Amino acid sequence: MKKFAVIVAGGSGQRMGAEIPKQFILLKGKPLLHYTLQSFLLAYPDLQIILVLPDMHIAKGCEIVDQLIAADRVQLTAGGETRFQSVKSGLQFVSHPSVVFVHDGVRCLVSQRLIQQCYEQAIQKGSAIPAVVATDSIRVDEGDKHFTIDRTKVRIIQTPQTFRSEILLDAFKQEYNSSFTDEATVVEAAGKPVFLINGEYNNLKITRPIDLFIAEKLLEEITV
Amino acid sequence: MKKFAVIVAGGSGQRMGAEIPKQFILLKGKPLLHYTLQSFLLAYPDLQIILVLPDMHIAKGCEIVDQLIAADRVQLTAGGETRFQSVKSGLQFVSHPSVVFVHDGVRCLVSQRLIQQCYEQAIQKGSAIPAVVATDSIRVDEGDKHFTIDRTKVRIIQTPQTFRSEILLDAFKQEYNSSFTDEATVVEAAGKPVFLINGEYNNLKITRPIDLFIAEKLLEEITV
Repeated sequence: MKKFAVIVAGGSGQRMGAEIPKQFILLKGKPLLHYTLQSFLLAYPDLQIILVLPDMHIAKGCEIVDQLIAADRVQLTAGGETRFQSVKSGLQFVSHPSVVFVHDGVRCLVSQRLIQQCYEQAIQKGSAIPAVVATDSIRVDEGDKHFTIDRTKVRIIQTPQTFRSEILLDAFKQEYNSSFTDEATVVEAAGKPVFLINGEYNNLKITRPIDLFIAEKLLEEITV
Repeated sequence: MKKFAVIVAGGSGQRMGAEIPKQFILLKGKPLLHYTLQSFLLAYPDLQIILVLPDMHIAKGCEIVDQLIAADRVQLTAGGETRFQSVKSGLQFVSHPSVVFVHDGVRCLVSQRLIQQCYEQAIQKGSAIPAVVATDSIRVDEGDKHFTIDRTKVRIIQTPQTFRSEILLDAFKQEYNSSFTDEATVVEAAGKPVFLINGEYNNLKITRPIDLFIAEKLLEEITV
């Protein structure tokens, strides 16, 4: 089965307090995005990447891609205003039938093992949404009131959110809706169920300086 | 105002995959619990700690306390079956009027600044529950179905959960209920509102091997 990874890296770096968008921050001398791309390229020799970047960062993206071991399997395209539009922009390069991974560019510690497990489940069930259980108590804050929700039922959602192409492409024909916060919500809105899979605690979303610090330390322990 | 910190360390170490309960695991040559106790002792010179440990670990706890700079401000007591019972056991040594911090023994990276901010808010509003916003999408898994909840409303709850003594001690007069997953839920069940405060991303609950690794790296960066 053909495999496409739509890797979305639209961050502006605001939460990082840095001038440079977080996907380009250097970790052990290489941009964070380098590690993300490399993990997908190494997971399957026939996997194609569609890297979605803001228009103004395409040139920088090309530089990173040129340094990869399999640069010919990566193509770049410009994203949109929202994650939905960026992913949709990437999906125009996907062909049927295939399995499509949609991944946060800043989850640079994603393992090849998780990518492969998501693929296997997507083949079997149609989708695979990596999730880990919460270790802390969780509350929902409604402004004027807040309440606890049962921690054992809380799942922290990661990427790659993985789907058979017909399910994902069909769902992305919908009009944009502000409730579309990830691909799972888009697919559900199209009337299809989504299936969770065990994620990995190391599969961090690099959002704040502490995450960057942790990622650097973890990269020192593993060979990417 | 008098200050008491009830520090609960009842972990069995199951999730850590270690023989030794996580509160006793060594970080940079010292038990994890050492750092937790030290942070509270350093936050206020008049703060008293009540350390609650399983009966079988009291001797080990005494060894750790003996190594502290202000061992005379720490007393030990045996905990119960549940967190509620362990905290209740600690609260018998608390006197009125005071501010009471209830803290997870395994949150060893808690800062003196956060402890002080919780104290200030508890004086003013009656309680301070540290919370941080979620960076990942969150789902609630009900077994046969699961659904997204608005991430911007999700708060990840930490400790020290801090209260004016009259509010907390009064709430702990209630019969135990399985919905009492932390002190905030106990106080709410007694009909009192609880007030959140900004927590800290570094204030990790050491639960899994990766957390331990991160804590060690962070401790190398800070002086406790």
